[in-house]
Amino acid sequence: MKQGIVHETGLIAHGRGEAYDYLLGETTIPLADAAEKIAAASLLCAKNPVISVNGNVAALAADECVSLAKSIPAKLEVNLFHRTPVRVRKIAALFRKKDVTTLYGIHPDARIPGLDSDRALCEKRGIYTADVVLIPLEDGDRCQALQKMGKTVIAVDLNPLSRTAQTATITIVDNVTRAVPRIEYWIHLFKKKNRSDLEELIRTWDNPRNLRNVLCFISKRLNSLS
Amino acid sequence: MKQGIVHETGLIAHGRGEAYDYLLGETTIPLADAAEKIAAASLLCAKNPVISVNGNVAALAADECVSLAKSIPAKLEVNLFHRTPVRVRKIAALFRKKDVTTLYGIHPDARIPGLDSDRALCEKRGIYTADVVLIPLEDGDRCQALQKMGKTVIAVDLNPLSRTAQTATITIVDNVTRAVPRIEYWIHLFKKKNRSDLEELIRTWDNPRNLRNVLCFISKRLNSLS
Repeated sequence: MKQGIVHETGLIAHGRGEAYDYLLGETTIPLADAAEKIAAASLLCAKNPVISVNGNVAALAADECVSLAKSIPAKLEVNLFHRTPVRVRKIAALFRKKDVTTLYGIHPDARIPGLDSDRALCEKRGIYTADVVLIPLEDGDRCQALQKMGKTVIAVDLNPLSRTAQTATITIVDNVTRAVPRIEYWIHLFKKKNRSDLEELIRTWDNPRNLRNVLCFISKRLNSLS
Repeated sequence: MKQGIVHETGLIAHGRGEAYDYLLGETTIPLADAAEKIAAASLLCAKNPVISVNGNVAALAADECVSLAKSIPAKLEVNLFHRTPVRVRKIAALFRKKDVTTLYGIHPDARIPGLDSDRALCEKRGIYTADVVLIPLEDGDRCQALQKMGKTVIAVDLNPLSRTAQTATITIVDNVTRAVPRIEYWIHLFKKKNRSDLEELIRTWDNPRNLRNVLCFISKRLNSLS
């Protein structure tokens, strides 16, 4: 926050994440890993996969996102809830230092329909035409708007009850710092697989069922601690 | 935070609280009310009751704390995890505007044993000699150190698993903005009661049992949402 990467409200959001992470035991539970596996398959099968990064993602998992983007390969696009030219510039500089030559979203030329103000801004060759978008730590409105555009939306959200978690195509209930490397782990494994096998795997995914099971997992864990 | 009342890490702590509050349904559950009732009885029976206020408490529930302090009556003492003269001054000014003539902790003259640095600072006529201390939103170290001094420690903490929640004498798992007025509600009711009846009520309190029941409540609620 002091470096101008994270917005002050991002600290509150981070605290919410911390609380839900404690409830999971600060570990990648098997139900999260299952979602990470399907996320990897979807990103590999995509025509134009894009990883959306905001201030919190840049602060927490910039290296991990850059590495994942290279492994797929996927584009990286900056998208900020509280967008200011200064913050966009600072995040762009952060990724440039990590040898990212093309970061989308700095000069937006399209809008996500149904969103007001600067939150709608995106880039035609990036998120606007993406078929699969990975949105770590995204707000519910934007998640829903991307869904309505017909995209496969992969969300990373530690709160299984959030609107983002409830509306994404694939919801990963895990800490972004663990989730992104784990998706990359699956990417490397899946590169040897046939596309048709991966597409078959994706078809088996039942997101509402997985979310119910996550709630059930946390419920049992709390009960075991009581 | 922008006014210098709340420290930036206080925003993260606030986010954690928000997350746990969602799990409770953003309401005072009967188990919290039971703790608020015992808290009121303890504060009324105390010889030197003190309400400890930090940045987050000042930002969220200053009016509520001032009103509760008057109703008991109890002293108010400022205590900051990240103590700076500027922040102490700003919080003191905030309470002065609310007609608080004596705010303890501005000129500390004692130390809580077992705590390092500025977190140990307190005032002899305030927290140092208090028999009952209400600590809304306190860290675990300080809660434990106050316990070791033999005080009755009443904590308000939305996380039933936190060290503060686990080590307090009376743990109120509720939002501070709801908990403080609710304690005051019981204060007004109990003012008509005999001291011996209140002391009998306090003796019945089983804090570990209440905490277990809170975890069980959240567990059941999550299960019902899954």
